Amino acid sequence: MQRYFISSSNWSEDGKVVITGDDVHHIVRVMRMDVDDEIICTHPNGEAAICKIIEISSDKVFVNIVNWKEEQVELPIHVTIAQGLPKADKLELILQKGTELGANKFIPFQASRSIVKWDQKKADKKIERFNKIVKEASEQSHRTRIPHVKSVYSFQKLLEESKDYDVKLFAFEEETRSKQSEKLSHIFDEIKLGQSVIACIGPEGGFALDEVTLLKEYGFSPVRLGPRILRTETAPLYFLSSISYHFEELR
Amino acid sequence: MQRYFISSSNWSEDGKVVITGDDVHHIVRVMRMDVDDEIICTHPNGEAAICKIIEISSDKVFVNIVNWKEEQVELPIHVTIAQGLPKADKLELILQKGTELGANKFIPFQASRSIVKWDQKKADKKIERFNKIVKEASEQSHRTRIPHVKSVYSFQKLLEESKDYDVKLFAFEEETRSKQSEKLSHIFDEIKLGQSVIACIGPEGGFALDEVTLLKEYGFSPVRLGPRILRTETAPLYFLSSISYHFEELR
Repeated sequence: MQRYFISSSNWSEDGKVVITGDDVHHIVRVMRMDVDDEIICTHPNGEAAICKIIEISSDKVFVNIVNWKEEQVELPIHVTIAQGLPKADKLELILQKGTELGANKFIPFQASRSIVKWDQKKADKKIERFNKIVKEASEQSHRTRIPHVKSVYSFQKLLEESKDYDVKLFAFEEETRSKQSEKLSHIFDEIKLGQSVIACIGPEGGFALDEVTLLKEYGFSPVRLGPRILRTETAPLYFLSSISYHFEELR
Repeated sequence: MQRYFISSSNWSEDGKVVITGDDVHHIVRVMRMDVDDEIICTHPNGEAAICKIIEISSDKVFVNIVNWKEEQVELPIHVTIAQGLPKADKLELILQKGTELGANKFIPFQASRSIVKWDQKKADKKIERFNKIVKEASEQSHRTRIPHVKSVYSFQKLLEESKDYDVKLFAFEEETRSKQSEKLSHIFDEIKLGQSVIACIGPEGGFALDEVTLLKEYGFSPVRLGPRILRTETAPLYFLSSISYHFEELR
């Protein structure tokens, strides 16, 4: 069912919601919906309700709440973790914990300082195993969506695909040391509910200088994840925890 | 620059430091350093100095302080993670990641649903190993303090010692499901810089009902850590990341 994020002022006490702005166009013209069709409206507090359309005017859609969805357990921001291939079984840890923490997609990529190289023959088996890990972690954490796990990308492919994202970030150790670096919260403040964010994490040795240059050229902003230097597998967990805190616990 | 934690007795008044023990091996054999190379020495009081090697003997490295570093890498809240004994090597994961994320102290405790029981004979060996883990994680994350790891507590001892803390919290799965639960940020908003916080995390099966009753009697407030159900070893990482985000990145 199509999902819309509706400002709190558009919800009335008597179980009605009025939809305005671009969403009206989307509901009427793009989705070609009509009276009696159902959509999901999500309140900024993270709760979601199944709603039935009762009236459509030229610039408004009026809906009635049919019932509140049991829980809103999905992170209201779609986060993709692009992870420079780390050593040993760290990727599995990232997939399992990252799923619990609400990630939407994982893209492992071959970074120039990645020590591991993927054997293409074994890649299919690995992806199968990874999908099992995220499925089980989704079930365990009571999520309603299972994250996607992509097969390993080249750095160039990662850059190309990053164009599809609303917000592009990369964890950069130099930012941790810089007092001038932008606070993570200033970046989160600019993200709107429902947007897609890609967070790019380097492997053990960090990003190479030419990778940093390219990331910046492709519109990635450097971020610091607190003042301490985190291991490669800890960085995505800090990022996901803090984005969850910001959007799910900070109101 | 490589970082070493040096006992206070090894620092002399005249700006010299003598390095002994395992660190000598690390400096000379692992890092292959020589006279005139620089390292960072951290004093137990939390201050760190850039030091230059002036002499290397068979079992000692002598360095001169070049200058003291100005840095604030320690979490401005003193967080103790009280962790119900988890299975397998999860405690080691919590110690390593929790150190990177800024924890001040770890208290493993025997919860009624802990499957593992500590063999008292092996406890000393374990604590020795745990201290090695937190020391290495402190160095790697460029912290200026090494967290304390306590030997395993009984639940009663944990309750008694909790009286020393300014703020007492426990992660409670029921809160995750409750719409009435207090937002984590409301609790963080009440914490003042420099205060001590103890966050109590249950083992795999969560807290038993009588434990919940006792925690509340002793003034612990239940908190939710986002809307998803986290594994026992993920909960302290979410807690530490979000408290770091709140106090180090949110201004």
